Amino acid sequence: MENFRFSMPTTVIFGKGTEKDVGKETRKLGSRALLHYGSGSIKKSGLYESVVAALKREGVEFVELGGVQPNPRLELVHEGVRLCREHKLDCILAVGGGSVIDSAKAIGVGVPYSGDVWDFYERKGEPSETLPLGVVLTIPAAGSEASMSSVVSRGDRKLAINFDLIRPVFAIMNPELTYSLPPYQTAAGAADIMSHILERYFTNVDHVDLTDRLCEATLKTMIHNTPIALAEPNDYHARAEIMWASTLAHNDLLSTGRVGDWATHMIEHELSALYDVTHGAGLSVVFPAWMHHTYRHDIDRFVQFAVRVWGVEQDFEAPERTALEGIDRLTQFWKSIGMPVTLPELGVPQDRLEEMAKRAVAFGPVGSFVSIREPDALAILRLAV
Amino acid sequence: MENFRFSMPTTVIFGKGTEKDVGKETRKLGSRALLHYGSGSIKKSGLYESVVAALKREGVEFVELGGVQPNPRLELVHEGVRLCREHKLDCILAVGGGSVIDSAKAIGVGVPYSGDVWDFYERKGEPSETLPLGVVLTIPAAGSEASMSSVVSRGDRKLAINFDLIRPVFAIMNPELTYSLPPYQTAAGAADIMSHILERYFTNVDHVDLTDRLCEATLKTMIHNTPIALAEPNDYHARAEIMWASTLAHNDLLSTGRVGDWATHMIEHELSALYDVTHGAGLSVVFPAWMHHTYRHDIDRFVQFAVRVWGVEQDFEAPERTALEGIDRLTQFWKSIGMPVTLPELGVPQDRLEEMAKRAVAFGPVGSFVSIREPDALAILRLAV
Repeated sequence: MENFRFSMPTTVIFGKGTEKDVGKETRKLGSRALLHYGSGSIKKSGLYESVVAALKREGVEFVELGGVQPNPRLELVHEGVRLCREHKLDCILAVGGGSVIDSAKAIGVGVPYSGDVWDFYERKGEPSETLPLGVVLTIPAAGSEASMSSVVSRGDRKLAINFDLIRPVFAIMNPELTYSLPPYQTAAGAADIMSHILERYFTNVDHVDLTDRLCEATLKTMIHNTPIALAEPNDYHARAEIMWASTLAHNDLLSTGRVGDWATHMIEHELSALYDVTHGAGLSVVFPAWMHHTYRHDIDRFVQFAVRVWGVEQDFEAPERTALEGIDRLTQFWKSIGMPVTLPELGVPQDRLEEMAKRAVAFGPVGSFVSIREPDALAILRLAV
Repeated sequence: MENFRFSMPTTVIFGKGTEKDVGKETRKLGSRALLHYGSGSIKKSGLYESVVAALKREGVEFVELGGVQPNPRLELVHEGVRLCREHKLDCILAVGGGSVIDSAKAIGVGVPYSGDVWDFYERKGEPSETLPLGVVLTIPAAGSEASMSSVVSRGDRKLAINFDLIRPVFAIMNPELTYSLPPYQTAAGAADIMSHILERYFTNVDHVDLTDRLCEATLKTMIHNTPIALAEPNDYHARAEIMWASTLAHNDLLSTGRVGDWATHMIEHELSALYDVTHGAGLSVVFPAWMHHTYRHDIDRFVQFAVRVWGVEQDFEAPERTALEGIDRLTQFWKSIGMPVTLPELGVPQDRLEEMAKRAVAFGPVGSFVSIREPDALAILRLAV
């Protein structure tokens, strides 16, 4: 186990009806909020009215900025920074999924910064302060509600920052708000959540017994509950398990003492940047390919994955067969919930694979479990064809 | 799953050599600390000198108060409150195990309170402020380093408080500091940690899939690593797994969305209060007895415990047999690590069982999985004979 430093400062307020507390919680952060949201589905669902009523009840004034898109754009972040400065807003309330929260995090660190917030994403500086951020989560997937990450796109570049400073102060999570998620988004969220765990699971750090088991536990919860939520969209229990798993998958509890890989995310970011694919769907294509490319590096770990997560009976005479069976089970599971597992299924043509491979390693080799250079990234993308 | 509210504000600083950061971390809390510790084992181990040097390096002045005993006493808490007031101390540094930390928590809420801090333990009031508390942990057991609990004794009464306010601000955890723990204390710590998980595991709340699995994962980590630490006291990896498990077992992550039982703890508190037994050893006696008394209430849950935690092959025709096998495996495990599993082994005579049963339910029935009244408590104690 490696040395680590960990806390989970975000207060999670979880369960039925919890969105009614949003006014009271936001009031603790400030009295003038930027109300940030996405395409307007929160207006259709009635959540928008509940939130606005709760803010008004507590005397929180607010300025609205909707329109966040999947793979959130820097232009809207700039607009948010401008609004916060112009109206002297002192906190942000993000109502939505990972894109809205990531956009809000960017606005938060952008407001007190004299330069362009994009500097942080280009690794030209580190933020030292932020507007406090609260969240009402509507999509369990990105884990951004308690994570230190934000991913923002500018043109065809999609970059990430990771700072403890940007973790939300509170996250209101009512599983009922996810009943209306379309099946594809439910499944893509599941693939995203599982990928966050898998990125941490495949590590070269040895003696990580507890976090291995916590990762396996969280993966098994996803495997058990995702098909239930797809078959019965209003099953509170399945929705609740998935929602809580989404947070724990990405708040770094499961990374304590380990070093994660993250090559798959870096490659997928290039898919999303060029083709604007759904992040979870991109991950469900890239991960099996990455596994086929890398499993020989540590067959034992893939055997453990197969046996403990998927219940594969171990073939002691041919461990490689067990390892491959685990990868196959993951692939079949993702297919079974309607996720693509090849680039053609994702609608991505094959004429820019070289370009994506090159871009994925623009900052140098990616991945810690196995170091991925340009030819490896290309090989992985070709395995996904 | 029940609604819940959760955060883990304590910053855990985990790993080799981390105690050298104690000056810097304490300096963030204040400039005048109460240095609180136990019987003086930290002087023998050299930890005391390291801590004092680190505090001096950062210009933190301090007043010392050693002498905390297992089952910490109210008298010493009063002395700590007096010292903090007299010397205008603005923070507390606890160096030790659960008793030292629990005592420090009591001092922390006692200092700004105009009445007697015992009021909080007698449920006559709730603390609204505290001196900030930092910890250097030397015994993984009580989980007090990140928990909301403190248990203090006055005469032969042993009472607990639970408030988010009293969670430490930081906890420095170096597994190397636990190499010198005697085998009995290592094993008693393991029984304590496992009991914290078991108290949460046996719940009447249904659909708690993720936290069930997280509990099972943490239990399996303890089952795997405790015998290693006993056989090889200087095995860093085993010590590290146990130490991190101790925190996660009791910081309430494993209670999210569930209602724990805690009858066993209430009964054990009376054992400790009358006979000053080691808390973990008392739990290893009471828990199997509690299980034999209650398992018929929910055989399925005990079957799950047997199958998932202990790898018992399920007897589908006779689930009760599987349930009992799980209880037996736990009992045998605790015996195998040198823990007592009967009152005679603990050195407790049988002449005051009625009195202990009466005292255990002094505030009313205990236990949420099964409500335990006086006759039940007595039956449990008799099962432990």
